[in-house]
Amino acid sequence: MANSKYEYVKSFEVEDKLMPSTWIVVRIDGRHFHQFSDEHEFEKPNDKQALELMNSCAEALLEEFKDVVFAYGVSDEYSFLFKKTSEFYQRRASKIVSILVSFFSSLYVMKWKTFFPLKELKTIPCFDARAICYPSTKIVRDYFSWRQVDCHINNQYNTCFWMLIKSGKTKREAQDILKGTQTPEKNEILFQLGINYNELPAMFRKGSCVFRDKVEEIVKYNQDGDPVKRLRTKVGTVHRDIIGDTFWREHPEILSD
Amino acid sequence: MANSKYEYVKSFEVEDKLMPSTWIVVRIDGRHFHQFSDEHEFEKPNDKQALELMNSCAEALLEEFKDVVFAYGVSDEYSFLFKKTSEFYQRRASKIVSILVSFFSSLYVMKWKTFFPLKELKTIPCFDARAICYPSTKIVRDYFSWRQVDCHINNQYNTCFWMLIKSGKTKREAQDILKGTQTPEKNEILFQLGINYNELPAMFRKGSCVFRDKVEEIVKYNQDGDPVKRLRTKVGTVHRDIIGDTFWREHPEILSD
Amino acid sequence: MANSKYEYVKSFEVEDKLMPSTWIVVRIDGRHFHQFSDEHEFEKPNDKQALELMNSCAEALLEEFKDVVFAYGVSDEYSFLFKKTSEFYQRRASKIVSILVSFFSSLYVMKWKTFFPLKELKTIPCFDARAICYPSTKIVRDYFSWRQVDCHINNQYNTCFWMLIKSGKTKREAQDILKGTQTPEKNEILFQLGINYNELPAMFRKGSCVFRDKVEEIVKYNQDGDPVKRLRTKVGTVHRDIIGDTFWREHPEILSD
Amino acid sequence: MANSKYEYVKSFEVEDKLMPSTWIVVRIDGRHFHQFSDEHEFEKPNDKQALELMNSCAEALLEEFKDVVFAYGVSDEYSFLFKKTSEFYQRRASKIVSILVSFFSSLYVMKWKTFFPLKELKTIPCFDARAICYPSTKIVRDYFSWRQVDCHINNQYNTCFWMLIKSGKTKREAQDILKGTQTPEKNEILFQLGINYNELPAMFRKGSCVFRDKVEEIVKYNQDGDPVKRLRTKVGTVHRDIIGDTFWREHPEILSD
Repeated sequence: MANSKYEYVKSFEVEDKLMPSTWIVVRIDGRHFHQFSDEHEFEKPNDKQALELMNSCAEALLEEFKDVVFAYGVSDEYSFLFKKTSEFYQRRASKIVSILVSFFSSLYVMKWKTFFPLKELKTIPCFDARAICYPSTKIVRDYFSWRQVDCHINNQYNTCFWMLIKSGKTKREAQDILKGTQTPEKNEILFQLGINYNELPAMFRKGSCVFRDKVEEIVKYNQDGDPVKRLRTKVGTVHRDIIGDTFWREHPEILSD
Repeated sequence: MANSKYEYVKSFEVEDKLMPSTWIVVRIDGRHFHQFSDEHEFEKPNDKQALELMNSCAEALLEEFKDVVFAYGVSDEYSFLFKKTSEFYQRRASKIVSILVSFFSSLYVMKWKTFFPLKELKTIPCFDARAICYPSTKIVRDYFSWRQVDCHINNQYNTCFWMLIKSGKTKREAQDILKGTQTPEKNEILFQLGINYNELPAMFRKGSCVFRDKVEEIVKYNQDGDPVKRLRTKVGTVHRDIIGDTFWREHPEILSD
Repeated sequence: MANSKYEYVKSFEVEDKLMPSTWIVVRIDGRHFHQFSDEHEFEKPNDKQALELMNSCAEALLEEFKDVVFAYGVSDEYSFLFKKTSEFYQRRASKIVSILVSFFSSLYVMKWKTFFPLKELKTIPCFDARAICYPSTKIVRDYFSWRQVDCHINNQYNTCFWMLIKSGKTKREAQDILKGTQTPEKNEILFQLGINYNELPAMFRKGSCVFRDKVEEIVKYNQDGDPVKRLRTKVGTVHRDIIGDTFWREHPEILSD
Repeated sequence: MANSKYEYVKSFEVEDKLMPSTWIVVRIDGRHFHQFSDEHEFEKPNDKQALELMNSCAEALLEEFKDVVFAYGVSDEYSFLFKKTSEFYQRRASKIVSILVSFFSSLYVMKWKTFFPLKELKTIPCFDARAICYPSTKIVRDYFSWRQVDCHINNQYNTCFWMLIKSGKTKREAQDILKGTQTPEKNEILFQLGINYNELPAMFRKGSCVFRDKVEEIVKYNQDGDPVKRLRTKVGTVHRDIIGDTFWREHPEILSD
């Protein structure tokens, strides 16, 4: 009973290698997460625990996949950057996309209890994912700028919207008030509701950046009781501006290749 | 602060629509599951609970995604068949692949405790996935025949191998004994170890088929106490031969379109 | 001086194999042929010589490439159908597309003088081309029906348009008269200009079908002076309806595989 | 008679846009040109007229397509480089590939008589073509270095081979003599046959580079009889080393974008 008779069906599989020497971004995005966040009563406009669950999954993902050098998350989405020279699964798109989203989804369920000890997971968290290649460092930075601008625009709108709701407006009224407003007007609305936008948590305003960083660590204490330190590479999360040059200048190893 | 300046990065996303009017198969496959099954002490050559966990996830997946008309699972892999006319996410490959594998992964973790109440999930279950298009019903059937032949070949080998191990052979010895053997010789080896291959559970020998079927259901009892029945469509799992015509003749709705 | 140092650049080439077991259509289409036909004073709405040049190139192409089983041409476009099982250049799209369009272009220039003995080729004839896969015979037939309906619609419009011009109307007036008209109204316009649409040459109304056909051929004469015939396969062109079943029923070998 | 019923067949066409912001190389390559050069009695190892016909076609191609900034040709192949920012046909691969190869093929036939006034074109010249994207200037240069190294290796081998043939060796004997030889040994063989490899025409040794260059042109003569000059951009061909930096430093506009 040889298998060869049927093995021809393998010839229908298509090669889907991503272009060599380009940066690969895999962006995962919650499916039906509006509904998911309602079902699990996430706080509006931002649920700190839900965001930290996402960040924790992203950190674990960077621990597992050494070729992922940076990740940026906002709301129910996360973008993972592979280094330009990565040969992860020979750069096969469906392998890369499926493994990352599968790993992230499993983690999300496994870590749920840690971040929501009192909430049962009622429905099945699900993410879609895609891979995109970028040929230059400049365009990669523009990609992350795009996501962070989006974070800002959405967060400012949502913050206004939910503050208006909490102040007693209906959803319709809140939408009408915000229609066509620009940043200064939205800041003014928030100010009148007693909120200084810039004092909101950076995680809400800036999103989350996950990457490996050198941290000083105390290994042991010597005979004199003085600490013996060494530099260790550790995955961590910060909430920083990534549109300007400062962050990238401080972490040149991320985009060097 | 308009987003348009950076939005050009979207133009790097590629359209990946699968050919219309073709059958789409999404096959998911455990990543590093050899190691995963060791860590969780799965029974060899087949762990009934592990297989039933897979089947339960597949069933839930068919409940969720109406365009998936059939699934076939063996070991740590599962193939899902979309009907030919499906317009699920406009047939975008990365959407389809990522959503299915994400959903399956989440389910696998969520259902773990039901199937392994006494075992902690120690590592992160992860699956890869790919989409393949088949232009005709004949080739779709050949695809599933390919998987079922593979199931048979692997299961027969593994059953022999682990029975030899249990009889006291080393792994090396077992490999040497099996090298180059054909089906009759393997059956003979099993027979001498007291095993009739054909009496092993069908799930191990045939794999698992998941699909919607019409089942009779008692809705209520009438005044005379007689049951009032109706036909209901229900997702279920069977362990059948799918290489021959019988199964497909009995379930013509699966491959009709 | 080893070449290996630079050979890595080959890894940027992408595999572009077309799905096995599907019908491949390569459609070539004149680039800037509106201008080309003006420069070479093609007769309007149809230039018999220009069409026969196209047909002659298509015939030569079928003579050369045995896997092309049918071609349909109209105006400055031609569609070539590869049989479903073709392994021409391992079904690599760019090979197939480029070779066909290159061959056709060379032929077009080489044969020009035969069809336009008194006209110099003033500008460079150029065609674009694309490959499209179709998974079933039904859809292939729908493809050719699509092209033939297009032929009819364009030809009827153009015939009306140019007859109005020849009757003394300006281009603007002709356009205004035809705006929004349906088939019966266009036929009425032609009738009043003294033209019975159905008596126009079939090549203009139906386009051209090129394929291999069995023809009887006299090989020699025997001792009694009677002709000895045999069937020979020969590429030829007909102008037939290919939307209905008749043509395909008469030539079952074209779409059989 | 609406066309819409059949228009669904268009949905089988696939989008094949090449990645933005990358260099596009289209390489065309003679099909069966070994045979073609025999049929037309091309001189061995290099036919000056045949190469100049190729160069003339490449020049005409650069005149027509402004987005092509450089071309490199050797033997029966030519590589055309589109600037990184090109939006030629929205970067659709099959459009770009087919139009270039079609245009080149037509030109080749049209210009044949100019370069071979005494030779009839006996068979149909045909080229295949493919498009490849390169994400950086460095890799583009490596691409052209790859082609030029290939030119050198092939030309040196072929020169030795045909000189041995002309000296009375059989093809088999010539192959045996050359088997496993390196550059110095081949140069020695040529030297003994009275040939200084470095004095062979640069076109044979280096291939041909086609690009736009600023040339000084006399527009008119002023009242004093002095020439009034201006710089004009003109497409021309040179035979230069393109592996080192010199050529590219002298023509920075080619790879600047």
